[in-house]
Parts: sequence; C-alpha cells; structure tokens
Amino acid sequence: MRVLGIDPGLRNMGWGVIEVDGPRLRHVANGVIQSGNDGELAARLSILFRGLSQVIAAHGPDTAAVEQTFVNKDATGTLKLGQARGIALLAPAEAGLSVGEYAPNAVKKTVVGVGHAGKEQVQHMVRVQLPGVQFASADAADALAIAICHAHHMQGQNRRRVATGRGAA
Amino acid sequence: MRVLGIDPGLRNMGWGVIEVDGPRLRHVANGVIQSGNDGELAARLSILFRGLSQVIAAHGPDTAAVEQTFVNKDATGTLKLGQARGIALLAPAEAGLSVGEYAPNAVKKTVVGVGHAGKEQVQHMVRVQLPGVQFASADAADALAIAICHAHHMQGQNRRRVATGRGAA
Repeated sequence: MRVLGIDPGLRNMGWGVIEVDGPRLRHVANGVIQSGNDGELAARLSILFRGLSQVIAAHGPDTAAVEQTFVNKDATGTLKLGQARGIALLAPAEAGLSVGEYAPNAVKKTVVGVGHAGKEQVQHMVRVQLPGVQFASADAADALAIAICHAHHMQGQNRRRVATGRGAA
Repeated sequence: MRVLGIDPGLRNMGWGVIEVDGPRLRHVANGVIQSGNDGELAARLSILFRGLSQVIAAHGPDTAAVEQTFVNKDATGTLKLGQARGIALLAPAEAGLSVGEYAPNAVKKTVVGVGHAGKEQVQHMVRVQLPGVQFASADAADALAIAICHAHHMQGQNRRRVATGRGAA
C-alpha cells in the first residue's frame, strides 16, 4: 500500500510518498510544489492543484493524509494557509483517495514518540524509518512524517480489526 | 459577457451569474451549493468543487470574482473559510477564467454607493439592477452583488482604456 503525506502551504506545498509492506516502510519519493511569490491567487492555487494531481498520477498512492496545521498565526496568515489546505485536501479526494487529517502533535508522537519533538528530531526519525531517504526540503520531510503517521494509524486500525474478528475475511 | 460571482463558505457556497451588455445588466441564474454538515472535510470540498465546475459548464461565464471575506472570526473559523475560499478560487481558474477578488466593503460601495450598507440594502439594490431576480438564498444574493461589482469594475477599466487610447483597436 502506498501513502501520500502532504504538508500544506501556499508558497511551498511539501509532499512525500511511502510504501507500506506489513511492518516495513519504504521511501518512494518526496518533493515540494512551489506556487511562486506573485501572480493571481487563483492561478497559484491552480499550480498547487495540478502539481499534487501530477504527483498522485505519477506515484499512485492508495490513501493520503494532510497535516491539521496550527492556527496560531494572524488571521491573514491563517486564511492563506486555509486556502492552500483546501487544495491539499481536494487533490487526493478528486483522485478518489480517502484523506486523513492529523494534528502536528499526533504526527510527532507517532514518528518520535513524544508530541513536542523538534524538527531535527522528527527528521532524524524519518531517516531511521525510511533508510536512504534524501529530503527535497524541510516541508517534504514533514510530509513524509505525516505519511508515516497515517501508515501507523491505519495499521493500528487493521490490527484492531483482526483482533476483534472484523474486516475482510 | 457573463460574470460569475461567488460568496465562499464551507457549508453554503453562494453563486450568481449575470450578463453584461454595455451599461445593462441581466440576471442569468443564482444558487447555493451545500456540502452538508458531516462527512470527511476533503469529500465536502469535492462537492463544492464539482458543484462550482458544473455551474461554470452550465452557464459559461467569461470571468469570475470571489469575495475577499472578513477574517475577524476565530482562527478555526478562518481556517475553514480559507479552505472553502481556496475551492472558490480554484474552480474558475481550472476552467480558464480570470478571477477577481473584492473586499465586502468594495462590493457594497459599488452596489449601494456606501461601504457600510446592510444586507437588506444590498439585496434591494441587486433587485433594482437585476429586474425580476429571485434569490435562492442570502448567500446567492451576496454572490450576485459580487458579480455586479466585478462587472462595474471591468467596465471602469475598459472606459479608462478607451480614454487613454489603449486596448483592442
């Protein structure tokens, strides 16, 4: 199963795809889609939407997850982030994927073990779990962490389903 | 020329299409796209995106405008609004339309003549300028006001272009 993680941002949209094979994770690809600094806002959102749609077409994820970003910025920054986040949620949904959402603390807790880990600690644990990975950018590393969180979360659901006798025969 | 106005909202996305023929405006259609109250956020954004795309396919606008909504709500509300607004901007851009943005006060000033007009006053002036119009909802009426604002704004640009000798020969 392949998992797409997305770290939403209007200027830089980080993405990362991993492959999940039982307990093993493998890095597939990561990158960042940039909308530029100027131009009509609608055109910038189009760049992000098409970029994400191309990533999905190229790497064929089965499911996706988007970070539930902090909203402790000013209102203008929050509105901008929301617009980019709308695109991050829409692109996988339009490709027929389910889209999970995780708060930053939940991502850190899953990847590092504690909810208040620093960026370096998160990147270190992403490298440990995806041997040989090279990060295209810090946003792409965050996106891989989100994908790892989603993978663990779904495996937990599957384990519970097996334990209680539910799910596919 | 046909103009699409959009009043963005996650639960209710208002839209209105008008036709501009020189100084005359004509109502074409208006409505509201509802994403429901529950369900995965990504799926709700898909409903809004497809709904707007269908409106554009059905009524063939040449240009669009989206309200630059106030951000004086709480951060969670602003993020939600931003997500819906991202879709409102993306749908016309993906259909190849230019997308204008207007602050609520600019819309009121164009439609009513003052920037701090009440909702009833705006709706009254929309009815005066679009004889016979029936509003699908308050959000749809707001969307028609945005379309009227965009139409006036573009006519102003054309007049200036003619006056200065620029534009198409």
